[in-house]
Amino acid sequence: MADTSDLTPSRRAFLKGTAAGIAGAAMGAGAARAAGPDPLITDIQPFAQGLGDGVDATPYGLPIKFEDDVVRRNVEWLTADTISSINFTPIHALDGTITPQGCAFERHHSGAIEMSKGEYRLMINGLVDKPLVFTYEDLERFPRENHVYFCECAANTGMEWAGAQLNGAQFTHGMIHNMEYTGVPLRTLLQEAGLSGDLEGKWVFVEGHDASSNGRSIPMEKALDDVLVAFKANGEALRKEHGYPVRLVVPGWEGNLWVKWLRRVEVTDGPVESREETSKYTDTLADGTSRKWTWVMDAKSVITQPSPQAPITHGPGPMVISGLAWSGHGAITRVDVSKDGGKTWETARLAKPGEKMALTRFYLDTVWDGEEMLLQARAMDETGYVQPTKAQLREVRGENSIYHNNCIQTWHVKTSGEAENVEVS
Amino acid sequence: MADTSDLTPSRRAFLKGTAAGIAGAAMGAGAARAAGPDPLITDIQPFAQGLGDGVDATPYGLPIKFEDDVVRRNVEWLTADTISSINFTPIHALDGTITPQGCAFERHHSGAIEMSKGEYRLMINGLVDKPLVFTYEDLERFPRENHVYFCECAANTGMEWAGAQLNGAQFTHGMIHNMEYTGVPLRTLLQEAGLSGDLEGKWVFVEGHDASSNGRSIPMEKALDDVLVAFKANGEALRKEHGYPVRLVVPGWEGNLWVKWLRRVEVTDGPVESREETSKYTDTLADGTSRKWTWVMDAKSVITQPSPQAPITHGPGPMVISGLAWSGHGAITRVDVSKDGGKTWETARLAKPGEKMALTRFYLDTVWDGEEMLLQARAMDETGYVQPTKAQLREVRGENSIYHNNCIQTWHVKTSGEAENVEVS
Repeated sequence: MADTSDLTPSRRAFLKGTAAGIAGAAMGAGAARAAGPDPLITDIQPFAQGLGDGVDATPYGLPIKFEDDVVRRNVEWLTADTISSINFTPIHALDGTITPQGCAFERHHSGAIEMSKGEYRLMINGLVDKPLVFTYEDLERFPRENHVYFCECAANTGMEWAGAQLNGAQFTHGMIHNMEYTGVPLRTLLQEAGLSGDLEGKWVFVEGHDASSNGRSIPMEKALDDVLVAFKANGEALRKEHGYPVRLVVPGWEGNLWVKWLRRVEVTDGPVESREETSKYTDTLADGTSRKWTWVMDAKSVITQPSPQAPITHGPGPMVISGLAWSGHGAITRVDVSKDGGKTWETARLAKPGEKMALTRFYLDTVWDGEEMLLQARAMDETGYVQPTKAQLREVRGENSIYHNNCIQTWHVKTSGEAENVEVS
Repeated sequence: MADTSDLTPSRRAFLKGTAAGIAGAAMGAGAARAAGPDPLITDIQPFAQGLGDGVDATPYGLPIKFEDDVVRRNVEWLTADTISSINFTPIHALDGTITPQGCAFERHHSGAIEMSKGEYRLMINGLVDKPLVFTYEDLERFPRENHVYFCECAANTGMEWAGAQLNGAQFTHGMIHNMEYTGVPLRTLLQEAGLSGDLEGKWVFVEGHDASSNGRSIPMEKALDDVLVAFKANGEALRKEHGYPVRLVVPGWEGNLWVKWLRRVEVTDGPVESREETSKYTDTLADGTSRKWTWVMDAKSVITQPSPQAPITHGPGPMVISGLAWSGHGAITRVDVSKDGGKTWETARLAKPGEKMALTRFYLDTVWDGEEMLLQARAMDETGYVQPTKAQLREVRGENSIYHNNCIQTWHVKTSGEAENVEVS
């Protein structure tokens, strides 16, 4: 066994003299209130008011009451009813990269259905050697994988095509979540059913058990690459509204393809051109024609703190500007932050090296001079792609689109510390 | 902008002939029920019973009712009351590596206290140049980091010193969780308060705002290394029972050091030898003497599926044996699985390369012959350490210990698929 005694003080002879070798930059005295020992005693809280509460381990744990506003909808004005078919991750209140399922964005087209593992079936049919039906238990018997991936709605930030609209990162950019998914590669199940003949031009058509069925076509190339038939998110079972017991995970591609309550995968000799890929999820250009098959979510970023729902509440001095960046084409390699609406840029610190098709957290450790800022972030991914400005995006796409708005976002931070969604030319 | 059109079918000329290049091994026909097209239609569920439910995005989301047993306590017999000071991650029901906060193990010594961010204060005092008191908002102004770390109670698996006891991985090995923590390095705050003079032999004494205060001494070497003053777990605020609003994160070291509701960090010229490090958290050896300062959690693993709470529910054929491995000394490099009580071993597949002081998920994709198994896993870490057998551990440590039992665990899987906690000689 390892000898843990080598960490006892007697052997810790490495630290001589001053704090040489201490990494990390202190932020200067501005960030903490220095005080002599005497005032401290009155300033610090006494030990807690007697005993705290025991923890009832039987029900599933929930956030503390002080965090009641950190939910997928914390305003009444957004839609006619808080019970609706779309909701938003409170990204302005989160940090790190993982999204807890309980406050993770989701969208559904005909309600979240309740299907037990026992009832669940997945059919693979069409141009396969041997059509198959899998039970939930069957799926658990195949080799599985774990991956952290983001899932972004194609319509995320879609309101911004018409100019600065919704006032809050949760509503402009919150149709995204990032979870550790566990599942079986779709290619394994397709292989089990048997793919023979020429795969060139083949597609799969995927649909759910819900009434909308939400059928979508996916080229065979992607189906055999990294698509997962997933049954866990962040370690535990999928929540009902995330597709319990089984959903599709289509890394880097628009959320509508991530079919929930997955019912059927049909191998076809072409795309189905379903309702969900003709009446919706196409991008209408300036000349009235529509782009289709725009599945990949391009590189994008947003500053989450400060932002309209997360104003600066302190005076000038040290502060952290933070946000999220992601790309459906691979890993984020760099994020820049501007305080002057894009005239000058500083390179932010990535909390970890970017991972493919997963959210990347960035920080700019800076000093606020108390003046107004026009805060922007721009993401770059491993393909060399740079997130465009709104003007650049409109130049190519016009203003008729709903989907795939990955433009640079601007927050106007005022001297009060409050922030507002604005558009800069 | 990137041209997404390069994924349209017209350019997908790479897939010629058969499914050449498809990675991943299919598990053979045993795992899925093949059927002709006609029977399939009756076998698969019809589309859902009309519309599903809308999702109320206002409250925080909870698991579906079918997962009601996936909680930190799913039995009544464990302690006198379900409201108690210790609870257990349902690791038998989880997959991947992240533990959701709602079902993550926690332990407290005098109740979980309720302290708002506004009330919160952190004092740094003792042998520093300038004692400081930080508000919650102050902490948010320092550069912060994100890391996934496991937190394991020193007493995890402690009942097993006396032989095979509790029947379930949740109860033998569930005093552990693995979350993505966000916080400020403790060294940054110590540096802010000023560390001058010789740091050799210096320690910090850390304590919480709760009535127990749970004071513990940590050598300066560790305090300046990777300890975090954390305020988020898995992206969101710490739950009340996990130390809201601020806890200490001491990577790889026993959970008792991860002080919750962190109140004070005092720089001292030696360890305090507090109640929590003299009356408890020492390891009594066979000769009656006690080892102290055994902070690091040695390499360990457990098979979570199948296990007593997660029996095999299907017949012979393909199956996945899965579990978790971790080491306080660094990254897991390899996990072996035995089906015959340690006589022969097969190397498991790690879902991802091991990460320092974080849970690693392993899988053995195998075929069950329907016979009894004595299932074991053994972990190896980057230091070359190999997880010991119970006999090896007892040889060194005797049987008087409570803490730091990292022995190889055995599940006896019967022909019925049920599993039981047993001891093999």
